Amino acid sequence: MEENKIIVGITHGDINGIGYEVILKSFEDPQMFDLCVPVIYGSLKIASNYRKQFGMAQIPYQIIESPAQAKPGVLNFINVVGEDVQAEPGKSTEAAGKAAFVALEHATADLKAGKIDCLVTAPINKSNIQGPDFNFAGHTEYLQSSLGGENDRALMIMASDRGLRVALVTTHLPLKEISGALTQELVAQKIKDFHSALVSDFGVHAPRIAVLALNPHSGDDGLLGKEEQEIIIPAIEEVRQDKILVYGPYPADGFFGAGHQAKFDGVLAMYHDQGLTPFKALIGADGVNFTAGLPYVRTSPDHGTAYDIADQGVADAQSMRSAIYMAIDALRARRNHQESVSNPLPKLYQERPSRD
Amino acid sequence: MEENKIIVGITHGDINGIGYEVILKSFEDPQMFDLCVPVIYGSLKIASNYRKQFGMAQIPYQIIESPAQAKPGVLNFINVVGEDVQAEPGKSTEAAGKAAFVALEHATADLKAGKIDCLVTAPINKSNIQGPDFNFAGHTEYLQSSLGGENDRALMIMASDRGLRVALVTTHLPLKEISGALTQELVAQKIKDFHSALVSDFGVHAPRIAVLALNPHSGDDGLLGKEEQEIIIPAIEEVRQDKILVYGPYPADGFFGAGHQAKFDGVLAMYHDQGLTPFKALIGADGVNFTAGLPYVRTSPDHGTAYDIADQGVADAQSMRSAIYMAIDALRARRNHQESVSNPLPKLYQERPSRD
Repeated sequence: MEENKIIVGITHGDINGIGYEVILKSFEDPQMFDLCVPVIYGSLKIASNYRKQFGMAQIPYQIIESPAQAKPGVLNFINVVGEDVQAEPGKSTEAAGKAAFVALEHATADLKAGKIDCLVTAPINKSNIQGPDFNFAGHTEYLQSSLGGENDRALMIMASDRGLRVALVTTHLPLKEISGALTQELVAQKIKDFHSALVSDFGVHAPRIAVLALNPHSGDDGLLGKEEQEIIIPAIEEVRQDKILVYGPYPADGFFGAGHQAKFDGVLAMYHDQGLTPFKALIGADGVNFTAGLPYVRTSPDHGTAYDIADQGVADAQSMRSAIYMAIDALRARRNHQESVSNPLPKLYQERPSRD
Repeated sequence: MEENKIIVGITHGDINGIGYEVILKSFEDPQMFDLCVPVIYGSLKIASNYRKQFGMAQIPYQIIESPAQAKPGVLNFINVVGEDVQAEPGKSTEAAGKAAFVALEHATADLKAGKIDCLVTAPINKSNIQGPDFNFAGHTEYLQSSLGGENDRALMIMASDRGLRVALVTTHLPLKEISGALTQELVAQKIKDFHSALVSDFGVHAPRIAVLALNPHSGDDGLLGKEEQEIIIPAIEEVRQDKILVYGPYPADGFFGAGHQAKFDGVLAMYHDQGLTPFKALIGADGVNFTAGLPYVRTSPDHGTAYDIADQGVADAQSMRSAIYMAIDALRARRNHQESVSNPLPKLYQERPSRD
């Protein structure tokens, strides 16, 4: 490393999806290299094939063995699969699942060893990646297991640089299991975890958090469900004891219909579709999946492998670009926060109202 | 009636909410009177008090006993409550619940008797309106009971003049009861009902309907729930036998994230928040609640009583205006459709591809 830039590890994800396309498109803009030193865990050969197929210009690169050899201004490739592995765009193959896993395994090990500063993951296919070493519903659950300490709890946050941040109490559960999975303890814990992430990773001082209701009309005083009265409201009251600014529960439809999200730093949804559907409806292709609560920063674009357009060259790289920006921003915010916590006097000064 | 204009019955809803405000604001624009003859089931006195409080200009009016006396160009008031009934803006009172109910009862009877052509309802408070004659989760359920015949099934559709129409398979259910309420028969029936409403009330020939999945990621091949495989997909296949253009099931978040709603004439959601949250996030204050499937046309604004702003004069009347427009449009579409069905030769001609 010649300069003190942030080293961003990027996994290639499923080689038959749009992963390489959005990675390469992100670094077509040379300014991206001013922000970070990218280390791509993948296959130079497969990347080159996609580049040629899509008629993209050559991007400077080098092959390295370890992130210590990475240099600024180029795509630093760590080949994690053999020359014989080939992409079959649009198909779910066992080879693609294996290639996705070894890239993730290698990058995770380097992240843990401090060789890269943060991790951005291209999308995987949740069925072909399953195997003896990967038995998880997705990246978030794998990273929780491989990177999380005993007291770490991964929190899935969908975030946009337009300010909307939505976190989930439950993630990949069948709808009928959601109610049974909710407890006062879980909701309270997720509010606290969200609060911590907003402070440390998004640099928000005293964040305001809105909590969505589980049932329509927030349960209409119990007529349409009692989880608000029995679980969510007690959880909110419990967390308020810690001086966390938390409000709700709000009926999800009225909340977004009135544009209330603009008044809060974060919105905590009870389940996947409740949070992600309005998020994606409002943010479109620009969202980032941020994994909070672990000792390391990880982001990913909020789209999937998109097999249906994998050989067309038409994929939109905006979400991948945003994921890289957000990983860098979050890493800086976290370092600033850790510095201010370990050195409280400047922090107190910083928190005084501005006199400008 | 001097002219052959559509008579729109409008109930005042909860007198302590923003009902009168949005009704009066809708008719501040004289052009509204070109479209319809409004009959307001309510209280001239309470309406006048609100008008004065908000400093609004006088709108021409008359008091009538029956819609037969209604005349164009004025607000035709049918007083359904005594002079002693007073509004207490922002409060849930028993008097307001009773006043909301008698207005609804009166208007529904007139609709059934053919004295008014269609019905627009201002928002009620679902708790203070409950009583011996009203034991329903909302307007839709009451109207199903009072206006629906044996074979009529009310279908709740949220619609916007920007083209988005979302219908619900289940409406006011606690989240944990949704899965148990879904059957192949119910989903298939709702697709057919939605199809009929799009054809007859929205004038769409051969409508394309998208069906949302129940579980996240559409159940991920059964890993995250089996209702897609066991209920929704079979229902879609069943209905396709009737040559209905129906597609899905789509994961709700990805569907709206990709903007797929623009490719369909209607989106069928499995439950309240799944459909209404993205609808309201995208459409904001402009949505209309349309009750399809009954022998009469009824719409309402998609907001509630809004007690919190009931005495401020700041309510947005856009949704009420849209509800009135949509009732008129739907009534015309339904009449055209009925005419073409009862007179099939012109219909066949109309359905031929245009040569323009």
